[in-house]
Amino acid sequence: MSLLDYFRISKVASASLAKERLQILVAHERSSRNQPSYLPQLQKELLEVIRKYVNVEQDAISVNFEQDENQETLELNIVLPDSQR
Amino acid sequence: MSLLDYFRISKVASASLAKERLQILVAHERSSRNQPSYLPQLQKELLEVIRKYVNVEQDAISVNFEQDENQETLELNIVLPDSQR
Repeated sequence: MSLLDYFRISKVASASLAKERLQILVAHERSSRNQPSYLPQLQKELLEVIRKYVNVEQDAISVNFEQDENQETLELNIVLPDSQR
Repeated sequence: MSLLDYFRISKVASASLAKERLQILVAHERSSRNQPSYLPQLQKELLEVIRKYVNVEQDAISVNFEQDENQETLELNIVLPDSQR
């Protein structure tokens, strides 16, 4: 299954919801855990970039960060305001 | 299936590859196509942010942009250089 297939499935599942959404995912596959993670800092900068394009309130953003032995994933889900539809 | 499940499956599939990777996905569900897309410009800015953290050559980045009636997806796949493992 390709990544784009994932989004297609996800879109069908949420088709009944009228809200406009922006979803950003960052996955970092690491061969070693000796370095500190830069994803938390990266997350801040990504949100700054997003805010140049859309007027997003802090409470419209949900963040999920997971880390295991070989991979870190950062997921940002943003519900866009109605005025920008 | 959650998004994180997708990454878990993807990780298992690529576990035999030693390369360190960074994958960034942006999905924009739109209720109307009347506005111009900002994803191409956003892509440029995201790459500028990423380059603050990792030294990425242009040819290490593959970009996939898809658009349909209700959704746009931007996918950036970056193979990180060995020196940064």
